[in-house]
Amino acid sequence: MPPVTFGIAQLNPVIGDLVGNCDRILIAVQKLASQGVQLVLTPELSICGYPPRDLLMNHQFVIDMETAIADLARRLPHEVAVIVGIASPNPKANQSGGKPLFNSAALLQGGKIQQVFHKRLLPTYDVFDEDRYFAVGTGSQVFTLDLNGGSSLRVGVTICEDIWNDDKFWQKRNYADDPVAELTANYELDLLLNLSASPYAVGKQSLREAMLSHSAIVHNLPLIYANQVGANDDLIFDGRSMAFNCQGEIISCGKGFEEDLLVIDFEELSCTDNSSKYKNDNAEIFAALVLGVRDYARKCRFRQVVIGLSGGIDSALVAAIAVEAIGKENVLGVLMPSPYSSAHSITDAIALADNLGISTHKIPIQPMMSAFDLSLEALFANKTSDVTEENLQSRIRGSLLMAISNKFGHLLLSTGNKSEISVGYCTLYGDMNGGLAAIADVPKTRVFSICEWLNQTDSNLAIKQGLQEVIPINIITKPPSAELKPDQLDQDSLPPYDILDDILYNLIHQHLSASEIVALGHDQAIVDRVVRLVKIAEFKRRQAAPGLKICDRAFGSGWRMPIASKVTP
Amino acid sequence: MPPVTFGIAQLNPVIGDLVGNCDRILIAVQKLASQGVQLVLTPELSICGYPPRDLLMNHQFVIDMETAIADLARRLPHEVAVIVGIASPNPKANQSGGKPLFNSAALLQGGKIQQVFHKRLLPTYDVFDEDRYFAVGTGSQVFTLDLNGGSSLRVGVTICEDIWNDDKFWQKRNYADDPVAELTANYELDLLLNLSASPYAVGKQSLREAMLSHSAIVHNLPLIYANQVGANDDLIFDGRSMAFNCQGEIISCGKGFEEDLLVIDFEELSCTDNSSKYKNDNAEIFAALVLGVRDYARKCRFRQVVIGLSGGIDSALVAAIAVEAIGKENVLGVLMPSPYSSAHSITDAIALADNLGISTHKIPIQPMMSAFDLSLEALFANKTSDVTEENLQSRIRGSLLMAISNKFGHLLLSTGNKSEISVGYCTLYGDMNGGLAAIADVPKTRVFSICEWLNQTDSNLAIKQGLQEVIPINIITKPPSAELKPDQLDQDSLPPYDILDDILYNLIHQHLSASEIVALGHDQAIVDRVVRLVKIAEFKRRQAAPGLKICDRAFGSGWRMPIASKVTP
Repeated sequence: MPPVTFGIAQLNPVIGDLVGNCDRILIAVQKLASQGVQLVLTPELSICGYPPRDLLMNHQFVIDMETAIADLARRLPHEVAVIVGIASPNPKANQSGGKPLFNSAALLQGGKIQQVFHKRLLPTYDVFDEDRYFAVGTGSQVFTLDLNGGSSLRVGVTICEDIWNDDKFWQKRNYADDPVAELTANYELDLLLNLSASPYAVGKQSLREAMLSHSAIVHNLPLIYANQVGANDDLIFDGRSMAFNCQGEIISCGKGFEEDLLVIDFEELSCTDNSSKYKNDNAEIFAALVLGVRDYARKCRFRQVVIGLSGGIDSALVAAIAVEAIGKENVLGVLMPSPYSSAHSITDAIALADNLGISTHKIPIQPMMSAFDLSLEALFANKTSDVTEENLQSRIRGSLLMAISNKFGHLLLSTGNKSEISVGYCTLYGDMNGGLAAIADVPKTRVFSICEWLNQTDSNLAIKQGLQEVIPINIITKPPSAELKPDQLDQDSLPPYDILDDILYNLIHQHLSASEIVALGHDQAIVDRVVRLVKIAEFKRRQAAPGLKICDRAFGSGWRMPIASKVTP
Repeated sequence: MPPVTFGIAQLNPVIGDLVGNCDRILIAVQKLASQGVQLVLTPELSICGYPPRDLLMNHQFVIDMETAIADLARRLPHEVAVIVGIASPNPKANQSGGKPLFNSAALLQGGKIQQVFHKRLLPTYDVFDEDRYFAVGTGSQVFTLDLNGGSSLRVGVTICEDIWNDDKFWQKRNYADDPVAELTANYELDLLLNLSASPYAVGKQSLREAMLSHSAIVHNLPLIYANQVGANDDLIFDGRSMAFNCQGEIISCGKGFEEDLLVIDFEELSCTDNSSKYKNDNAEIFAALVLGVRDYARKCRFRQVVIGLSGGIDSALVAAIAVEAIGKENVLGVLMPSPYSSAHSITDAIALADNLGISTHKIPIQPMMSAFDLSLEALFANKTSDVTEENLQSRIRGSLLMAISNKFGHLLLSTGNKSEISVGYCTLYGDMNGGLAAIADVPKTRVFSICEWLNQTDSNLAIKQGLQEVIPINIITKPPSAELKPDQLDQDSLPPYDILDDILYNLIHQHLSASEIVALGHDQAIVDRVVRLVKIAEFKRRQAAPGLKICDRAFGSGWRMPIASKVTP
């Protein structure tokens, strides 16, 4: 390859904000051009952000996208080739049937749109709905990049999933076609590009590295992969864009969980191994959740958040995430003790708030409990106390938090973890209240290990500055309790969390049946109970706030279960 | 065609209940066989119910389906040919890539599975996600039906969408292929079958009639179409199965909104025109919503429902639907007046309850309001009263209703209409509380017209027996108000409902942009405000209860919008 410098603009778009996203691309390209970059790659659908979802059904939005890139092409430095992601019309849709759009990449250079390439493999599983919007791409995915010295490069263009179907890498493939193999068979390529919007999941980066390295080696081609960064509702995109030489070595890699501009010179290995700082899963998940909270707040235009602090570990972790995300001065903790609250629920919550440096407010809920009890007395005469009264406490707290959210314009973060949301150990319209469920995809056992890591790590987190311990030890060591009745403990109602989380992992992630989970060594009665609880909690999850996704199967946009159903065991 | 009698088993399956659904098919076939039927058609995916959604991702569930139909084949009368709908494994998925299942129809006869046919056109739009689960079908869609007299019929099998892509009928087609045209070009067919699970929408039945009649005429073939009936979460299936002769005449048609067994003899026109009783849209929508509430309650195993009665028209309509669906003895109305409630809010609610014959309970919310106000006084010092206090009233009511739901095991029905859910004129965790949002897809103007129809109709609804007026006139004639502050009227905050609903229709159903709606004659400022309100209410809708869908674009499973977004106008 002749000496040429490439660039990746690893950007954090706002969904639908065509003007803002184009401005961001323009500034990035100008910076990269000033460093001698001749070709800049941006992530998938970089013009509108990924996933635009049903915004794509508004035809004016599609027209506006075309206008936006034509305008962007005029404003960009004309000598630089820039590849942006865009949804483009499928001209054949009207005559021959099919979806009206392609998921495309446009080559902008010399003030114009030079060429448009279409995505061929359209993920339609988990959180992805691309068959809903897009037609399978056709046509050439190759262009010639003329270099300053008079030489040129043949460049292949692929979009995200296009590169995820190599038959030698995957045991089980999702599509019959392999666009990369076809490209390299049909053309003498010098370079392969991939525009991606690949959401974060624990452990996914090492899979990407292995797969992309494999592709570079198998096809003997340098490869540049630009991934979106930033969180959009439940999806967190981790960035960590990469360039590989034809030996499959990573020669450049972008930061995780923040915007980055990469200058890539295939002559030298310049990778500073940014990604290694997240080799620890706890550190990586924490960084992901911090980005998730920060971006949701920012993109929905909230400056401050409010969190109910129970003195328990879930709200403690959410508060720590929030402080790291938007600063301690922007986080309000609310303590709402009841007559069933332990003394340590208050002292632990205060200790946590002191550690984090956040302000708190205390509102005992007894007056509301009494008012509700008295008002319902006639109707509930002769009825024994049950989960109704527990839920009322939770709903009083949820209403107080929403009142504070309404009055001060704070975003309410809900604090439920994945284990309890799985089995419905949470109150709809109570502790489930919130605009964002920060740790909804974090199992309880992982909540503990992240908190332990937070206390131990010497990473340069803002919340660790001048602090030995972030989460008070008593919050980690005391047995979890909802404190909705006297002496209540989670373990009275649920299996121990290590057992529960293992059953849930096999049920939810591995799609195992009850009998298969029992065969792994779990108790039949416990498994049956957990399976039943997961099923009947579906109506709660359907009304849950968006929850930040950190693994390959989360409740939320990628979880589509019927409520009114009966699965015969 | 030789003399032969066909049957349709228009059944209401429970999603996932393989044993129950098979039993239902068995009983239906036995009844039809006793009337001389030689071939019975059931709806799409009749074994598991439609839509099974992510249950299809559990491999044990797929195995159980295969076991269930093998068992069903053995139990069915051996001489009858029965076509059932089933998800069947795609054996090529592992070698050549692709989705692991087909959406199939299985021919059961002689105690065995004789043949399996696969759906070719997989809807992936609106509420449909078939590309998520299914591979495009391949292979023959034809079988030979041997008749008693020694003759035989060539029968083509299509599944739902397969028949919805005729290039002469549709201006805009969703797929390049037309499986019906290919079938008739490749085979000398005597009969065409279609297994469907086509959800209800206002006006859809006349479209189905026109399209299927067209197909029968164009291909000069008799056609039998079996549609699912029953509601599953947000989707209502209206049944109204039909048979057409080759002249395109309807010779047999099934009931709307209830199970039905049809015996079809192509020699005689036997259609009793059941569907005509719903030629009135209000009658049809009311029947749909009654089925929706009844099935959601039944399939989630609730015997009784609770509804907050405000004295307004929305809760009045929901109460009427509930009484028609599950009986007056199973509906509890709760009146929760505040100091801002008008005198007529109580008298009107009581009059409604008297008309419907339901019991009521009254719980004034002032004590809870005072307790919340006092508890928040310190934090809210120097803040003026605003929407916070209004929402608190709504959340107190929502908590009271949920307490009653929890204590008595009643299903809470929420009462919000589509107009208010569109613009966010509703309180999350307040009046939005409920397991099912009965009229969430009904615009306010339609709420009025259904109530007026209810009062005028002489149909044999249970709630009309012995009643002149179902909805007290004052509920219909008084100006709508949320009554959350003194002298509040909806029209103080919103455009008149006829204008609002027209803007919403163009925005949501027609996908028009603000400027296009203004060009239709609406005021620019009002349109801009409505567009903005619809956008910022997205976070509320994301946490809404499932809402019964009655038109072609409802909020719910077919509405997938980003929350954190910014669409540049």
